[in-house]
Amino acid sequence: MNKEEISNWFKSLQDEICICLEGLDGSAKFQEDIWERIGGGGGRTRIIQGKNIEKGGVNFSAVHGLLSDNMSKSLDLPSNDFYATGVSIVLHPSNPHVPIIHMNVRYFEAGAGIWWFGGGIDVTPHYVIEDDAKFFHNHIKTVCDAHDYTYYSEHKKWADDYFFIKHRNETRGIGGIFFDKLNQKSKIACFEYVKGVGKAFNDIYTHLYNSNISKSFSEGEKEWQLIRRGRYVEFNLVWDRGTKFGLETDGRTESILMSLPKDAKWFYNHHPDPASEEGKTQSLLKKGIEWIEG
Amino acid sequence: MNKEEISNWFKSLQDEICICLEGLDGSAKFQEDIWERIGGGGGRTRIIQGKNIEKGGVNFSAVHGLLSDNMSKSLDLPSNDFYATGVSIVLHPSNPHVPIIHMNVRYFEAGAGIWWFGGGIDVTPHYVIEDDAKFFHNHIKTVCDAHDYTYYSEHKKWADDYFFIKHRNETRGIGGIFFDKLNQKSKIACFEYVKGVGKAFNDIYTHLYNSNISKSFSEGEKEWQLIRRGRYVEFNLVWDRGTKFGLETDGRTESILMSLPKDAKWFYNHHPDPASEEGKTQSLLKKGIEWIEG
Repeated sequence: MNKEEISNWFKSLQDEICICLEGLDGSAKFQEDIWERIGGGGGRTRIIQGKNIEKGGVNFSAVHGLLSDNMSKSLDLPSNDFYATGVSIVLHPSNPHVPIIHMNVRYFEAGAGIWWFGGGIDVTPHYVIEDDAKFFHNHIKTVCDAHDYTYYSEHKKWADDYFFIKHRNETRGIGGIFFDKLNQKSKIACFEYVKGVGKAFNDIYTHLYNSNISKSFSEGEKEWQLIRRGRYVEFNLVWDRGTKFGLETDGRTESILMSLPKDAKWFYNHHPDPASEEGKTQSLLKKGIEWIEG
Repeated sequence: MNKEEISNWFKSLQDEICICLEGLDGSAKFQEDIWERIGGGGGRTRIIQGKNIEKGGVNFSAVHGLLSDNMSKSLDLPSNDFYATGVSIVLHPSNPHVPIIHMNVRYFEAGAGIWWFGGGIDVTPHYVIEDDAKFFHNHIKTVCDAHDYTYYSEHKKWADDYFFIKHRNETRGIGGIFFDKLNQKSKIACFEYVKGVGKAFNDIYTHLYNSNISKSFSEGEKEWQLIRRGRYVEFNLVWDRGTKFGLETDGRTESILMSLPKDAKWFYNHHPDPASEEGKTQSLLKKGIEWIEG
């Protein structure tokens, strides 16, 4: 199995997910931008700006070339040539009762036979709904367990630590899984896990979307959504390593920043009433919650 | 002249500016939060959320304690003890024809007699108005020239380089001045320059505000303002060293992030028509424009 086969699988995953999402939104179509990277490779950025999925991106890329010496060193690589391919998704729904979702699956290769997979999927509800959180974590645990019984607990903890807004002392949402430098099994076995994660996306998002899209919402609930989106912006611009790496190394800005919502709000020192639904959600934005019983 | 005198001067500057701004807004009052820093010192955060000055902060702080070894090393200091005091201002007006303004004046002291001043003032118009840009740069040049004829050109270039959104290849606005580690003259002489910059704020902002606050604006102009605010968020969270330093070293998050606007928007791959007013402004967001003739 070579890198082209992996990359082609990611491309087909992008296609499948875009078809599913156009079906869910009901009217909007993805706009595609094909781009090339000066140093080598390129991508297919696909953006949806719909009535229900207000703003989202499903991006594929496969880039290659030479890393800076600093970057090679920080990744502990023996040489500078690299190849990286993957799919990244962020969706911001219009309805505050539908959560924001993010998924990334990726493959990295360097000289001297070095390779690894990485990825993750996490959910950021504006209002945490326990049944949805349990559904999501159960679903993702089933995917993990099909490959290795240690994956869910390890990669769930990694997500809690990674999707954390340190300066707010709160998690971005209800977590999920995150993993990097996955190469401890055969390449085929690692790839099968990554495929499992990628293929789970449509079922997970379809369930979370359909369960909540018909709910009505108040102006206050919309405002809370915009405040939570502000926190999403803070995480992505301040802490997300992929975003920082992309912006600092002249990546394609519009593809990287597709993760930002259409709009966001910041009020000074805003704290919801602990007894309100907003306060309840705020209290659940912490590490280490076990959503799966037993 | 000791650090307490400098700090007290900054406090009185904060008072003067808050009085001026309450007068300009016409109805809103600053809300004050006094806070203490666990490691030593504290501050007076003052926030205005008015009809005309939609969201802004005029913050004073004087903090002291021990820097991390990494931080001392990166600042090339012989010891870890430090003292830092200053005033930081960011104002986001409601009317898109009034510019965003930022000013910071600060003093830093470390062991072994080390000290320096820093600061800057820069203007971010949503619509660049040439007369306003010329007024601002002329005014600030007059302040600079009263202290040293090299300051304006040097500190103007520094501002162009500092207030630059690298991943967008555009400046944050029309620049101004920026300087750091100013200690090449006597402490009194350096402080007099910093005082001059601080005292210029009220005249500069009053002029820019009064020239534009009565202008009517369209929905399209309001939307463009929100897009420009999005870029302001990007600069502050991705590139601004003060913000990054504060968030990474457990500063008071709400005081640091007072710089964020009440709301902001992001559209995928948005480019204004080059022939429009928005396009004209976009074309002026570049380094090296000389606003002062002759």
